[in-house]
Amino acid sequence: MNPETKIIPIRWNDGRGEIVWLDNAQIPWKEVYNSTKDPARLIKAIQTLEIRGAPILGEAGAYGIAMIANNSKNSNEDILKNITVHGNVLSEARPTAVNLGWGVRHIQDIIKTEIKNGATPFEVKQAAICAAKKIQEDNIRATHKIGEHGWQLIHDGDVLMTVCNAGTLACDGLGTSTAPMRVAAARGVRFRVLATYTAPLYQGARLTAWELHKDGIPVQAITDNMAGHLMREEKVTAVWAGADRILGSRTRDSGTVYNKIGTFGLALMAHELGVKTYVAAPTSTIDPASTIRDVRIEQRKPEEVETLLGGTTVVPRGVGVINPAFDRTPPEYVSAIITELGAVKAPYNVSIPKLLSLEGSMVRLSEI
Amino acid sequence: MNPETKIIPIRWNDGRGEIVWLDNAQIPWKEVYNSTKDPARLIKAIQTLEIRGAPILGEAGAYGIAMIANNSKNSNEDILKNITVHGNVLSEARPTAVNLGWGVRHIQDIIKTEIKNGATPFEVKQAAICAAKKIQEDNIRATHKIGEHGWQLIHDGDVLMTVCNAGTLACDGLGTSTAPMRVAAARGVRFRVLATYTAPLYQGARLTAWELHKDGIPVQAITDNMAGHLMREEKVTAVWAGADRILGSRTRDSGTVYNKIGTFGLALMAHELGVKTYVAAPTSTIDPASTIRDVRIEQRKPEEVETLLGGTTVVPRGVGVINPAFDRTPPEYVSAIITELGAVKAPYNVSIPKLLSLEGSMVRLSEI
Repeated sequence: MNPETKIIPIRWNDGRGEIVWLDNAQIPWKEVYNSTKDPARLIKAIQTLEIRGAPILGEAGAYGIAMIANNSKNSNEDILKNITVHGNVLSEARPTAVNLGWGVRHIQDIIKTEIKNGATPFEVKQAAICAAKKIQEDNIRATHKIGEHGWQLIHDGDVLMTVCNAGTLACDGLGTSTAPMRVAAARGVRFRVLATYTAPLYQGARLTAWELHKDGIPVQAITDNMAGHLMREEKVTAVWAGADRILGSRTRDSGTVYNKIGTFGLALMAHELGVKTYVAAPTSTIDPASTIRDVRIEQRKPEEVETLLGGTTVVPRGVGVINPAFDRTPPEYVSAIITELGAVKAPYNVSIPKLLSLEGSMVRLSEI
Repeated sequence: MNPETKIIPIRWNDGRGEIVWLDNAQIPWKEVYNSTKDPARLIKAIQTLEIRGAPILGEAGAYGIAMIANNSKNSNEDILKNITVHGNVLSEARPTAVNLGWGVRHIQDIIKTEIKNGATPFEVKQAAICAAKKIQEDNIRATHKIGEHGWQLIHDGDVLMTVCNAGTLACDGLGTSTAPMRVAAARGVRFRVLATYTAPLYQGARLTAWELHKDGIPVQAITDNMAGHLMREEKVTAVWAGADRILGSRTRDSGTVYNKIGTFGLALMAHELGVKTYVAAPTSTIDPASTIRDVRIEQRKPEEVETLLGGTTVVPRGVGVINPAFDRTPPEYVSAIITELGAVKAPYNVSIPKLLSLEGSMVRLSEI
């Protein structure tokens, strides 16, 4: 049985020339697909988190430019004008997400090259759409490879713990931290998952539990403060996390993982209890240049902590809050990092640069 | 400056023969006092956490029996029958906290002794009410003593982390884990507190932050999954927890702390990061007979985890949850236990029995 998912977070509708996406802001309450050929509507969808997750934002940026080109008159001048004007607005829809701007620029560059090479407006539009599709296909293929590299780390009877959502909803395909799970499930491995809430946006419960359940993988949701107790009582075998950034230089900071707040706490508890912590992410997440001094952790607005998903106020008036979006897990707490090129383990200042240089650094998973 | 608080979480209204309590379920939104002379209403208040916290539950159990006796006909037979029938139901309203059952049995025993000694029904009722009041007075006095024994563990510049609410709202007086804070603040020590959410009922944010802020102690609220990250980044010096039950036999289970879910996780992270974990509780919380095999951890209803305080649903339909109310922290993670009789540290199988036998076991705090 091939690993699959029933979830298609975003796609291009050729017949209608539209972008179609699963509205993440309504998960798990409603499964609604929205579509548009209007750049303003796409920007709104990105800003209201209907479309979210770094890799998916890259796809949205790419499809957005392809859509803008496709909407243009049959004139290369009109195409160029539109992808510049609307493209720059689109790439700033969420200024902190690098993938969005990357997707925008990538298709803008392809269009410019096509025009320079003498393509007709029809050929330019087709090239843009094909290039955007290829970004998505590459993303999806990377998740399948992560799954193939990671699934042998999952065994019959395992209980896995997750943080936030590094699944199909955020990363397309099989997701990143969920890819080994989907492959293992397809290979008949029997395991179950404890998805931690991941306050203050509850994406672990709302999104990860939703998509694993939908794909038939046994999952239970737990509050964040249950993690230590249930790690011991439910005999959790591994924590599986995604990553927003992984340091990969030749310094001893290499292997440091920046991921959604809570990852470090889980890794600390796992370490103390003899449980593994695995991080799954594409190599595009690896930052080969920075050290921990270079990375600033985003502080988000206090309202997110003061209220429960914008509803009930739980923090009394006058009481301050802290709201870091991410945390930093040092390499000594990371048992292995699983990428589309293979899995690596410590010492990361050797193994990650080797992986990136494709010098056959893939470790045999039985060594981990 | 003497440590004080203006909060009165529970009391007996002599004029109306009623129990009056501050409805914890409505804090921090409303400061509402409820009252009853109906045992069923009292049980409901306990089960819906209007009345909560181990020491307050002891007081509620005691006042509950006094109230049941007071409601009875002027016949010792009727009193005896009622306190037995209703008392047994009352003592089982919540299974993990020993205090509730203790308060119930204590007043039941006093009533039986009074009757045996030939007291009139009026005298029996008065004795029950006075004995219940004495339990409350003793509790309050114990919190002041806990504060006196514990405040020297708090130093200028400290950052303390709390779990759930072991404050005045739960324990009366100065609270238990908050008593050393209130005494330290009154003595001019400057420190601040990070109160963890403590899902699924958010009593850390709702109650602890509320009462510390009300009493002028600097406090910030954080989500549960921020604990590990902020323990390191904010240089937390100690975790302060209360206890629902502390094992205190001469076995190696001695020093095991049962407390609100999340305590064990914080203690694990603290241990790994070289941060102290202090547990403050009255000696009435100590169970000198049980081992970990004897203690069952209460599992609460799934709805609490599925929704955010009964509002927004965050767990998708079909996804299961786990909802343990408490967790178990082994003695090796407990740096010291502070009681009204003094503070003890490991080896707890020696120090706790010594403390209970009042053989001068109080350690000097500088040794901790």
